[in-house]
Amino acid sequence: MSQTALASWRDGTAKQAILDFISGVTTEGGPDFVAVADRIATFDNDGTLWVEQPLPPQFDFVFGTWAKEIKADPALAGQQPYKAILERDPAFFQGIATQEPAVITALLAAFGRSWAGSTPAEFEAQVREWTVSAKQPKLGVSYLDLVYKPMLELFNLLKDNGFRVFVCSGGGRDFMRVFAEETWGVNKENVIGSAAEYTYTADGKIVRGEEILGRLNLGPGKPEHIFAQTGRLPVFAGGNADVDIEMLEAAKFGLLINHDDPDREFAYTSGAEASMVKADKLGWTVVSMKNDWDTVYGKLADL
Amino acid sequence: MSQTALASWRDGTAKQAILDFISGVTTEGGPDFVAVADRIATFDNDGTLWVEQPLPPQFDFVFGTWAKEIKADPALAGQQPYKAILERDPAFFQGIATQEPAVITALLAAFGRSWAGSTPAEFEAQVREWTVSAKQPKLGVSYLDLVYKPMLELFNLLKDNGFRVFVCSGGGRDFMRVFAEETWGVNKENVIGSAAEYTYTADGKIVRGEEILGRLNLGPGKPEHIFAQTGRLPVFAGGNADVDIEMLEAAKFGLLINHDDPDREFAYTSGAEASMVKADKLGWTVVSMKNDWDTVYGKLADL
Repeated sequence: MSQTALASWRDGTAKQAILDFISGVTTEGGPDFVAVADRIATFDNDGTLWVEQPLPPQFDFVFGTWAKEIKADPALAGQQPYKAILERDPAFFQGIATQEPAVITALLAAFGRSWAGSTPAEFEAQVREWTVSAKQPKLGVSYLDLVYKPMLELFNLLKDNGFRVFVCSGGGRDFMRVFAEETWGVNKENVIGSAAEYTYTADGKIVRGEEILGRLNLGPGKPEHIFAQTGRLPVFAGGNADVDIEMLEAAKFGLLINHDDPDREFAYTSGAEASMVKADKLGWTVVSMKNDWDTVYGKLADL
Repeated sequence: MSQTALASWRDGTAKQAILDFISGVTTEGGPDFVAVADRIATFDNDGTLWVEQPLPPQFDFVFGTWAKEIKADPALAGQQPYKAILERDPAFFQGIATQEPAVITALLAAFGRSWAGSTPAEFEAQVREWTVSAKQPKLGVSYLDLVYKPMLELFNLLKDNGFRVFVCSGGGRDFMRVFAEETWGVNKENVIGSAAEYTYTADGKIVRGEEILGRLNLGPGKPEHIFAQTGRLPVFAGGNADVDIEMLEAAKFGLLINHDDPDREFAYTSGAEASMVKADKLGWTVVSMKNDWDTVYGKLADL
């Protein structure tokens, strides 16, 4: 294995555990060998591949859209989810992670209001506009400038060793697919996320509906969506939060990103308390952003 | 392009149309160039990649299972869909193609009875047993010996030209995924079909549920599932029946297999009447199995 494969990773137990695992998987006749066909790797996005503070970036896109809708129809400001968002109500955001039914229903209704009836091209144009205009509030740069370079290197290392790499986020499948190819080197078909149902109309268009397809891609929804998309469970999985626990449990190798770098990124454990306990119990490899990563941000083109 | 790429195809308009289209797609700067990322090809299975007479092979597998259930519980013989199957009721099979609600409801309930609660490994073992034991009634060989060699050559040609090849059948996604890799050289994740919802249980298992995910993968369901799985609509699509019309319409290049070879396969137009009319109107390339194919059957290993 190339010594420069994980160039932004400092030598240490996390980097070594990754290299040892990949070495085992690819050693034919060895006890840890995995057939090439089975080499599926899956990664959460928010907080695993890019910054998720103060909120996952897709919220910035969605709330921007909803702010325009509230301006056009001020009565919305008194209704959920608009009210909770305007008030930055922490209980509401907690309710997303725990999939509280009232919160999810309100959210889905609002997504339907904004995008039901739209085509993929219309949605893509909105997301592209956001990727070039939005800035992360603390760091002052585009969200796509806040992708973790060490994870892109890991993607390349996995691919070089016969893995197919999938991104598997609670966020929107179609949102991520807009920038997946240029940002991660991951084809759209390898992006798994929460997703609206689409209808093929009599005049030959794909049009977004009101409902979502299957469960939200959080918690147990992650291995369910991974199985539906790939016919397998992952061999290698990476995440950073409690909503990734089931995906990491389903994998042979679990990688948990620990946000402990207040200087270059953020330091927080909120939403990852249970996963840190699980990591210890199940032997997942915990990555310290502060200690294990020499460089935090970077682009595919710079690898 | 290699002259031997489509070795089992006789020279003629169908072969030439395929070669010309691929040449256009891959000619950078030309009017028909398609970026590599967009090169998605999708193919129906039954009647497009293997024999579908007298019934699509998966019915043989399913009916074999149901015959055992009727033996164990004879009262089932008076209920749908078991009754219609025992009587080989043509109206019932027509009702599948047209997605008649009562027919689909009865079928899904019977699928649930047979497989709800099962794991993918259990289902795979049943399908594998069937692939080695079942024989096509007229031709007397295993169904996997009745895969069309010219189509496997076409898959390879498309892949050699940057396409990702997907199989997209009305049949069961999980059924096809069992043999997709060795039979077609298509990874499980590139198999799209009608599919049950699966649940990830608290003890870490993927278990089949009662419901299906989205629509059946027939008619407009095909482009819907293709978009959901890949984020795109196909550039190249192949089918042989009216349930493939929307998928072929959604593609830049449509290939329609015409079953006109009673000596080596079967001759029938039933279920393909509207697609033949569409082919003429929309300029799809119609393949005569009798005239365009030098060899009909073959295996991936023989290419």
